[in-house]
Amino acid sequence: MDDNNHKQQYLKIAMCQMNVVDNKDENLKKAEEMILYSLKDDPDLIVLPEMFNCPYDNLKFIEYAENRNNSCTLNFISKIAKKHKIYIVAGSIPEFDNGKIYNSSFVFDFNGKIIACHRKIHLFDIDVKNGVYFKESDTLSAGNEITVVKTEFGKIGIAICYDVRFPELSRLMVDKGANILIFPGAFNLNTGPVHWELLFKSRALDNQVFTLGVAPALNNENDYKSYGHSIICSPWGNVLIQGDYNEELLIYKIDLTEIKRIREELPLLKHRREDIYSICKK
Amino acid sequence: MDDNNHKQQYLKIAMCQMNVVDNKDENLKKAEEMILYSLKDDPDLIVLPEMFNCPYDNLKFIEYAENRNNSCTLNFISKIAKKHKIYIVAGSIPEFDNGKIYNSSFVFDFNGKIIACHRKIHLFDIDVKNGVYFKESDTLSAGNEITVVKTEFGKIGIAICYDVRFPELSRLMVDKGANILIFPGAFNLNTGPVHWELLFKSRALDNQVFTLGVAPALNNENDYKSYGHSIICSPWGNVLIQGDYNEELLIYKIDLTEIKRIREELPLLKHRREDIYSICKK
Repeated sequence: MDDNNHKQQYLKIAMCQMNVVDNKDENLKKAEEMILYSLKDDPDLIVLPEMFNCPYDNLKFIEYAENRNNSCTLNFISKIAKKHKIYIVAGSIPEFDNGKIYNSSFVFDFNGKIIACHRKIHLFDIDVKNGVYFKESDTLSAGNEITVVKTEFGKIGIAICYDVRFPELSRLMVDKGANILIFPGAFNLNTGPVHWELLFKSRALDNQVFTLGVAPALNNENDYKSYGHSIICSPWGNVLIQGDYNEELLIYKIDLTEIKRIREELPLLKHRREDIYSICKK
Repeated sequence: MDDNNHKQQYLKIAMCQMNVVDNKDENLKKAEEMILYSLKDDPDLIVLPEMFNCPYDNLKFIEYAENRNNSCTLNFISKIAKKHKIYIVAGSIPEFDNGKIYNSSFVFDFNGKIIACHRKIHLFDIDVKNGVYFKESDTLSAGNEITVVKTEFGKIGIAICYDVRFPELSRLMVDKGANILIFPGAFNLNTGPVHWELLFKSRALDNQVFTLGVAPALNNENDYKSYGHSIICSPWGNVLIQGDYNEELLIYKIDLTEIKRIREELPLLKHRREDIYSICKK
């Protein structure tokens, strides 16, 4: 064990690469179905994708948004977590608060209690020539907090999709002690094939942590086409498991002691020249 | 053109993935031979690998080290640059200065004048179980400066090998205006296959610049086995050209206007949340 940051050597993770449709009830039912199905493998932690209860669409964000104090989605997930004594990272949902909508990820402990909420810090605005156009900033507001949550499996950093593109954020989560970085995300068919795996591998390698990306399945009926390919990468920068485009449940057991071993062999974090540069939180 | 940082649209680069042997004269002859051979393709810039005049070996660093004011290697390269009116990034050499040895890269303009020197900032100390062991810090001292040099092709960031593993350094070079990051480097047969391409792709993608890695060829007679695979990556994170293990000359023409186009489509640098974090130079 590296620093008593985690109490157990292994962490079994279930990633629900679910098909998201334009019907909140069906999405919740699908999430429950995949979670229950995963339980036969006895996972420690279940992760849902970005916008798992809502199509990835600016107008739908408005229509589907919920206030956390009165959220059928969060209540639903909380009950599942509590009933089955399981940690759940509830991907993300459009969260309504004080006249604004955020792209927010909630983490539930095995008592069904919300122990963290990350509001996407970097809003996704893209305009590729003859390719994908999307402007989250048309409807969403950005969060301002870096999110690292303490669990019995160690500290976990939570961020969402486009947040993964900014190496400073991953570095800061790791500096706060995160051994695992979880990004519910939904890359598209332009950026997914070139960038998705590359980003998860490189954030894992540079920071010598495990990285997870959990995406909705590709649904050709939605305007925004999710790349899928939910992924776990090792602290050595290898892909440990990766899905395809379709709906699937991915289960993988990571060995948390890998982090210590790799950091001893190649002490990247220690070799940073903090006398020359450093990443400052403002 | 993005910012008058460069006067021409295209930049043709020759990368000399040369076989380095335990004989300085032979190494210089080989460098000259490859440079002269490349001239028929009319490159704008020629790049030599890390430790192009010396085997990658701590004892050899001591034996081969030269003072920049009295350096047969640097004089030799200077004359070639001047005679053929060509920019040369002279990979790196062991540089002796004031009782210390540095792993230093010198950049020559087409008048044969040294316009920049980068002393490797991050020293490479690795100890992989049943794998590679090397401790540069046994003989070398670390540089303390970030190196970005203005040329007629725009600003170029220069760093060496292990320096590529630290995202902060690449970011800072880009913040100083670098559109191209050049890393003479020599990864090994442990880290090369897993990390070399990944690092060059990800530094290019995150910063939306061109990245270059120029390595010595694999020479099985040397103790340290270089992975070779000299590479150029695009600001979209694609590999544009990559060598194999053996000695070879790689020539590729990059289109500098790609940077502006990609930064318009996906404005990553602009989307950084500098109100939340920033990388500070100390």
